[in-house]
Amino acid sequence: MHIVITGAGGFVGAALARHIVACGLPGQPAVTRLTLVDRRFDDPPDDARVRLLHGDFGVEQVLDAMFDPPVDVLFHLASVPGAEAERDCALGYRVNLMAPLALFERAASQERTARIVYASSIAVYGSALPATVDDATPPKPGISYGAHKQVGEIVLADLSRRGLVNGISLRLPGIVARPGFSAGHGSAFMSAILRAAQAGEHYTCPVSPAAACWWMSLQGCVGNLAHAAALDTSLLPAARTVTLPVLRLTVEEVVAALARRFGAQAVAGIRWQPDADIERVFGRMPALVPGIAERLGFAHDGNVDLLVERAL
Amino acid sequence: MHIVITGAGGFVGAALARHIVACGLPGQPAVTRLTLVDRRFDDPPDDARVRLLHGDFGVEQVLDAMFDPPVDVLFHLASVPGAEAERDCALGYRVNLMAPLALFERAASQERTARIVYASSIAVYGSALPATVDDATPPKPGISYGAHKQVGEIVLADLSRRGLVNGISLRLPGIVARPGFSAGHGSAFMSAILRAAQAGEHYTCPVSPAAACWWMSLQGCVGNLAHAAALDTSLLPAARTVTLPVLRLTVEEVVAALARRFGAQAVAGIRWQPDADIERVFGRMPALVPGIAERLGFAHDGNVDLLVERAL
Repeated sequence: MHIVITGAGGFVGAALARHIVACGLPGQPAVTRLTLVDRRFDDPPDDARVRLLHGDFGVEQVLDAMFDPPVDVLFHLASVPGAEAERDCALGYRVNLMAPLALFERAASQERTARIVYASSIAVYGSALPATVDDATPPKPGISYGAHKQVGEIVLADLSRRGLVNGISLRLPGIVARPGFSAGHGSAFMSAILRAAQAGEHYTCPVSPAAACWWMSLQGCVGNLAHAAALDTSLLPAARTVTLPVLRLTVEEVVAALARRFGAQAVAGIRWQPDADIERVFGRMPALVPGIAERLGFAHDGNVDLLVERAL
Repeated sequence: MHIVITGAGGFVGAALARHIVACGLPGQPAVTRLTLVDRRFDDPPDDARVRLLHGDFGVEQVLDAMFDPPVDVLFHLASVPGAEAERDCALGYRVNLMAPLALFERAASQERTARIVYASSIAVYGSALPATVDDATPPKPGISYGAHKQVGEIVLADLSRRGLVNGISLRLPGIVARPGFSAGHGSAFMSAILRAAQAGEHYTCPVSPAAACWWMSLQGCVGNLAHAAALDTSLLPAARTVTLPVLRLTVEEVVAALARRFGAQAVAGIRWQPDADIERVFGRMPALVPGIAERLGFAHDGNVDLLVERAL
């Protein structure tokens, strides 16, 4: 089968590509070709089945190349992160809104019915969340990134209803632990605090110890993406959206696990300097009841110690 | 002020254009230019301020012309009707999804903040409606037309949040009484039964007498569109959507009003041959509580006799 990953040079995309090269997809035919699409690749997998497409997934020639040969599974991960899209409206409009719709239309026009796994985001919910989020919680995006992700979900569901594609939208939380400093993600502190403890470095955290966040490791995320590609989609609701199970943990709980893993001295350099905006948007996450997701076999990282182990 | 209407050759657009030429917009500066955009015009208003743009609102050169001079109020009415879009996926995708997003982006890029009045549709709700529809009822579109309208709402709300446009989405019901036979509208029977009674012709109605529909006259619709253009949008919810007040009437009640208006013989030629699909989608409309809409001064036609009088 021919698998395509957009954003395959990114943090999640690169890990997914490595995973597919190593393991294929659970219960699916063997991978004969893996097309990776991105503007740059730092360390692409070295495998004869892998083809690198350097470029923008929204550009006609890149689309032509992506769908030749026809695509069996398309992972659409490419996007401009939320904070960056909020700064640059035109860029976000193009990359997070118009280009995905053109991509989905292209997939819908091929004879073969492509499975599309779309990386949506919990940003669709916005920041005025109810006390508990469940499968009935309506999206109310507060930033363009979330609005555009919601649009992608709606269009993918409609094309799937028509049988033109077989889509599933996974609403991802912030994934840890991204390397370096990621200015584009408002939730960057979640990765930074893990990396700082691992390196035993000083870190000033922009939320309070009591801030409650939704956590998922890169390994857990990749597992869920691969699971989505192999799933019986007839079990999905008409909206074709799945809010993934997460670990809801305070930053304090995560720091305690980091101390267990790396020693008390590793977290001794953590200072707290809460930023009201970041705390409000990312630090007051409510309980999540992932009914559909758990019934369909998606999973969180298990517990805080496993999260830390898998994330680093 | 410069007003633009897309779909200005259509049933609603042409009436809105005539209304604006005659009355301007309530409480707004005088209209200096009215640009009408459509692929054809049957009977455009004869007025020095009116400019006709023959073409497709999604085409670059037409967009260039539309926004020169800068636009103060944009009524975006152009769309492919629901049943037609359901038949022709590519056409619906282009006209109801991609082109409006390009149009909104163009409006957002001009220096002046354009008021955008977007003709959305009750099709966003889908056909599995709750017993009562109110401002909290979430959209669950069942056809592409409704999905694409919902997308337009979301994107318009986001651009409005950013202050790049000042948008409002009106969810319109079927508007009566369209002339002729409109194959593109699943709700065409609502107009056809009115026209048949007016003409004293035979008509076979595809829903039962007990079918309950949401009714609005063309005159009422035009009034609500003009009202939206002049409204204080700071009173709108963040989603910037308004489900307009409607008269919920059974077809039987409408036929009784037609008999009062045109005489019993005018409706003697009506036969009933319910189609289960049409009855299900258009003939089981629940109660509507238009909270936001009524607070903001939108209105339905008053009563069934006024509806019939205004519609014909």
